[in-house]
Amino acid sequence: MTTATGHLSAGKLRGLLSLADSDGIFRMIAVDQRPPIFKALARYDHRDPQEVSYQEVAQVKTLLTRVLAPEAGAILIDPNWTHPHALPYIPGSVGLMSTLEDYGFTLHNGERLSHPIEGWSVAKIKRSGADGVKVLIWHRPDVSPQTQAHQDAFVLSVGAACREHDIPLVLELLSYPKPGEAEDSLAYARAKPQWVVDSVRYYSDDRFGIDLLKLEFPASLKHCAEYASGAFDGQPREAAYDLDEVKGFVAELDAATNVPWVLLSAGVTPHEFTLNLELACEAGASGFLAGRAVWLEALEYYPDLGAIEAELITRSLPYLAMLSALAERALPWTEHRRYEGEVALAGAVEGWHTEYRG
Amino acid sequence: MTTATGHLSAGKLRGLLSLADSDGIFRMIAVDQRPPIFKALARYDHRDPQEVSYQEVAQVKTLLTRVLAPEAGAILIDPNWTHPHALPYIPGSVGLMSTLEDYGFTLHNGERLSHPIEGWSVAKIKRSGADGVKVLIWHRPDVSPQTQAHQDAFVLSVGAACREHDIPLVLELLSYPKPGEAEDSLAYARAKPQWVVDSVRYYSDDRFGIDLLKLEFPASLKHCAEYASGAFDGQPREAAYDLDEVKGFVAELDAATNVPWVLLSAGVTPHEFTLNLELACEAGASGFLAGRAVWLEALEYYPDLGAIEAELITRSLPYLAMLSALAERALPWTEHRRYEGEVALAGAVEGWHTEYRG
Repeated sequence: MTTATGHLSAGKLRGLLSLADSDGIFRMIAVDQRPPIFKALARYDHRDPQEVSYQEVAQVKTLLTRVLAPEAGAILIDPNWTHPHALPYIPGSVGLMSTLEDYGFTLHNGERLSHPIEGWSVAKIKRSGADGVKVLIWHRPDVSPQTQAHQDAFVLSVGAACREHDIPLVLELLSYPKPGEAEDSLAYARAKPQWVVDSVRYYSDDRFGIDLLKLEFPASLKHCAEYASGAFDGQPREAAYDLDEVKGFVAELDAATNVPWVLLSAGVTPHEFTLNLELACEAGASGFLAGRAVWLEALEYYPDLGAIEAELITRSLPYLAMLSALAERALPWTEHRRYEGEVALAGAVEGWHTEYRG
Repeated sequence: MTTATGHLSAGKLRGLLSLADSDGIFRMIAVDQRPPIFKALARYDHRDPQEVSYQEVAQVKTLLTRVLAPEAGAILIDPNWTHPHALPYIPGSVGLMSTLEDYGFTLHNGERLSHPIEGWSVAKIKRSGADGVKVLIWHRPDVSPQTQAHQDAFVLSVGAACREHDIPLVLELLSYPKPGEAEDSLAYARAKPQWVVDSVRYYSDDRFGIDLLKLEFPASLKHCAEYASGAFDGQPREAAYDLDEVKGFVAELDAATNVPWVLLSAGVTPHEFTLNLELACEAGASGFLAGRAVWLEALEYYPDLGAIEAELITRSLPYLAMLSALAERALPWTEHRRYEGEVALAGAVEGWHTEYRG
């Protein structure tokens, strides 16, 4: 629990220290993806993603974990495929975060409702020895009151459970297109910055109990004048803004947070994510939690696991090292304005151990 | 919980991985000492140990933690002085273990009865985000059935709580002199090896739920023919055994364990502990958990905290580095015969996350 002066409870403090590197910067990788992994493996033999077996997914996630985890500050895993099989390959010095939300969402008039993974919980995550709980909330500020209430209730319940078990809550916010909207359109690119900033401001309220935000880049560099000629994928697009405006959106995003935040990679290419991360770090991000930007290209070699491993070693690890070096410009989480210059344990006086809850 | 095949539950597996280095060897330091710290600080101004203030102890333990923790694989702390003040100085990559037993013991016909720290518990240790629970049991095999029953009940209750909260239990066993016995005597040196081996064999029973043993060297090198001339403290002693016999005791000790074990330093000098550790690693120990051998000499400069810090940096850290290098010859815990060549998660099949308890 965070007190008025920004002091942290023992479990949240230890958890954040474990997820961050010793310089206070988060250099984390995610292998908890589900549909993106199913889709990548389904390309082999032109299958439907549903035809990909449990064993195939577990094997690939274990491979990603075994190669990437030792070079990351922390790793985000799922409880279905990764946790049971890959745990022995995660060095104890590497922070461990577990995903709480199901990848499936229900639709309410085209609006996405999030749910926890059946049979998984904050209590189980804590008991398993993990250092943090991650939950993804689909969000845009223009949803109906019913959808908003459902999403809020979910976040509030997870926030309360994380306080109860004294473990950091990492909230991921993702905007999404409603039916009929195209994510790669000029209109979507134009609307996105305000959505992202408004969502962040909304969930920054202390009642939600968030300790770290995992945020998408608040604009599309593909629609940024300086890159709209097709810099990332060869496809020219109409510009929605220029780079100075984009920097303004990232600054607004940072100003809207009341806890430290990291950047997620959301399936953009390594080149685009590098630029996103540079801009985010300049604006006050405390690092990254990257997934597909790091390892997706290696999965093109599936089912040749040897070739995937070689690709991870020769391309993903150097890319991760580059991101890690770039993140040296990030803001250490301990220096976020929330902590007013001093990260300390709440109630750190004689007798703390008797007051602390079991 | 450990299954028949030696597979580990998620929290115990993650905890042991966190306490060990990535090579499976434990290189841990202890700053949870209480009477030895009171005594060291009381030397200043010729005080009684009870006159040493809370603030003094907290300050010195925080200094020890700040300098030593970053160079250790894990650190053992107490909940009274160290946890509330030194937690921010323990890097997240360094394993964290918390002490459960009170330093005070009650005497029953000269036999020591152990008790938990009032207001502290396994539940609190787990909730605080620590990776392991350490409990010291005073033990010798010749105690009365009443004393044995008391000590057993304590260990059993801690073992059950550690299973409940899925966190490793590190059991420390220490033999002790009964009133009228002298710890530095020939008779005590002669009796000790069998006591230590018998105690270890006794608590190795699976019903106690121990995951790692923290053991004293099972003989006194001061009373070993090769060193009895006064090699460590200038004081000659009568020999109780020779080095070959000592090696035999350590081999017996290793054979008596059914879980990995580490060596504790028990207040011997750095020189003697180095030899103890070499012999222990040769016999199958998985590393060390050292306290006073590493930092006690630096406390001679109290209350000059700057001089203590300088001494820690110029003497303790190089000594710790030497111990760490020496421990490369230790047996990785993952290779202990208990695990039959494969450390894995218990129940690691599809649906593990629903079966795992919250």
